[in-house]
Amino acid sequence: MSLVDLSNELAIGIDIGGTNTKFGLVNHRGQILTQGDIPTDKTPDIEDYIEDLFNALQPEIVKAGNKPIRGIGVGAPNGNYYTGTIDYAPNLPWRGVVPLAKLIGDRFNLPCTLTNDANAAAVGEMMYGAARGMKDFIMITLGTGVGSGIVANGQLIYGHDGFAGELGHTVIRPGGRPHWSTEINGSLEAYCSATGIAITARELRERYPDSTLNNYKSEEINSKVVFECADKGDEAARETFRFTGQLLGEALANFIMFSSPEAIILFGGVINAGDYIMKPTREHMEKNLLPIFQNKVKLVFSELKEADAAILGASALVWEAK
Amino acid sequence: MSLVDLSNELAIGIDIGGTNTKFGLVNHRGQILTQGDIPTDKTPDIEDYIEDLFNALQPEIVKAGNKPIRGIGVGAPNGNYYTGTIDYAPNLPWRGVVPLAKLIGDRFNLPCTLTNDANAAAVGEMMYGAARGMKDFIMITLGTGVGSGIVANGQLIYGHDGFAGELGHTVIRPGGRPHWSTEINGSLEAYCSATGIAITARELRERYPDSTLNNYKSEEINSKVVFECADKGDEAARETFRFTGQLLGEALANFIMFSSPEAIILFGGVINAGDYIMKPTREHMEKNLLPIFQNKVKLVFSELKEADAAILGASALVWEAK
Repeated sequence: MSLVDLSNELAIGIDIGGTNTKFGLVNHRGQILTQGDIPTDKTPDIEDYIEDLFNALQPEIVKAGNKPIRGIGVGAPNGNYYTGTIDYAPNLPWRGVVPLAKLIGDRFNLPCTLTNDANAAAVGEMMYGAARGMKDFIMITLGTGVGSGIVANGQLIYGHDGFAGELGHTVIRPGGRPHWSTEINGSLEAYCSATGIAITARELRERYPDSTLNNYKSEEINSKVVFECADKGDEAARETFRFTGQLLGEALANFIMFSSPEAIILFGGVINAGDYIMKPTREHMEKNLLPIFQNKVKLVFSELKEADAAILGASALVWEAK
Repeated sequence: MSLVDLSNELAIGIDIGGTNTKFGLVNHRGQILTQGDIPTDKTPDIEDYIEDLFNALQPEIVKAGNKPIRGIGVGAPNGNYYTGTIDYAPNLPWRGVVPLAKLIGDRFNLPCTLTNDANAAAVGEMMYGAARGMKDFIMITLGTGVGSGIVANGQLIYGHDGFAGELGHTVIRPGGRPHWSTEINGSLEAYCSATGIAITARELRERYPDSTLNNYKSEEINSKVVFECADKGDEAARETFRFTGQLLGEALANFIMFSSPEAIILFGGVINAGDYIMKPTREHMEKNLLPIFQNKVKLVFSELKEADAAILGASALVWEAK
């Protein structure tokens, strides 16, 4: 009789971004033993990309001590959990529907699970981060775009076709700001992403002639610059975050009345603005809730290091997979 | 060895409304064998109410042939599945938190499951109606108010505290129409309930001096009257449904991007307006979806008879309970 030490097993986490693909070998406790990356945008042929990935990962597997590997988890934009395909991802070099989970699974001879990056982040948070022990929570990623992963009854909600949790594209201001890449006007992403914050700051600074934001060229304005100006007391910059927080808070209230989560977990560059955005977010969230939901839902930041989160989230899919 | 014929078992379904409580004995196939009702509003003492219910139900149990009864399911406003309590229901005669499931369970000596009326409707639809075989759908009840029940991964979403699925109170027009009983402005219920439709019609008829809606006293205007006027070609009445359908469609698009359901099932008096409301609903729903969700989600009517649906939904909780 031989006993397999499960705690010895590793999971491979792969996070596919438009420019780079990061990967790492992760143990059960969420420690990244070894990691690396390859470019995504240099290989328009998907077969070449898979080969690059295999060649980069093999030495890492050896480096990690040739321990048994349970499987591979992949987070990618437009990744579909049910079909294992990446469907029409505008920022990736491969067109149409790419059977990524099958291609990776076959090349590595390991089970491969794929989902979108925000869903992977939610699973990572549930496994290793701020959502440990929670059965109902919503993960919101506030970066260049706004992504989301929704967990209810302890399970990620994939929905009928695997695309659930596109909260960034829900409308929060009907007939509002056009979006740069969708046909939907007034979406959460159009306002509360880093991209949206920069647009708001460019609009608002015109009403504040003395604002230090006026010292920047239009293309230099980003959420980091707005934060720095806000921190130095600039009113237009502070008003940018106040406005963004109000809209985010209103949106979160709607989400809470949908799935009644224990917590909302926020992740991404935008939360670096701290109280400038979180105070109005919390205020307008509570204000737009029915009394039965008020002062109950935790609004917390991710507990995963931003640099590690994508790999950890993707690797967590392996442990979560049945 | 004795074999129990499970198909012989019955479930008791109880639907508690502000004025009346309806009950029925239902078999596995969703047939109501016998039913009755008692007033809700005549018994401010909950103990008296439970006694009335017991006395009214006992003869029905006998009438149904004294078959084995698996349990009791109750749908009630503000009914909480986890705690079995009705919490601060504004339209019921009992104040505060009422431990209804325990009171009924003890008096009948049967397991008792409680949830809110819209959740019960969703379970009824899954068991006996339009959602048979579906694992992901959203039920929207459009009556005096707007209720909802959300099913994902084959399970009703109760959320962390049992209050999930309050979609009627999500905001669809920030800063919009005040609500008659909440502090939330611009909610779905404020516009798309029968109550909201009457308000819209009263507002719109002022802009249409020739509208037949102007022949009615303000308090006579309800969604049925608006439908009759629309059906006779009245422009203000038709515009009322067009506007309502637009807002409903926009809200449904947001819900779809949350949980990616196979279908949205509509129930309640408002859907009697048929195409006058459904055409704009469908149009604005599709228009506000990302392409990956478009032309996929079924928008269907409940398949349960309106008179039976509440009892069937409540009884279905019994078969669903683990």
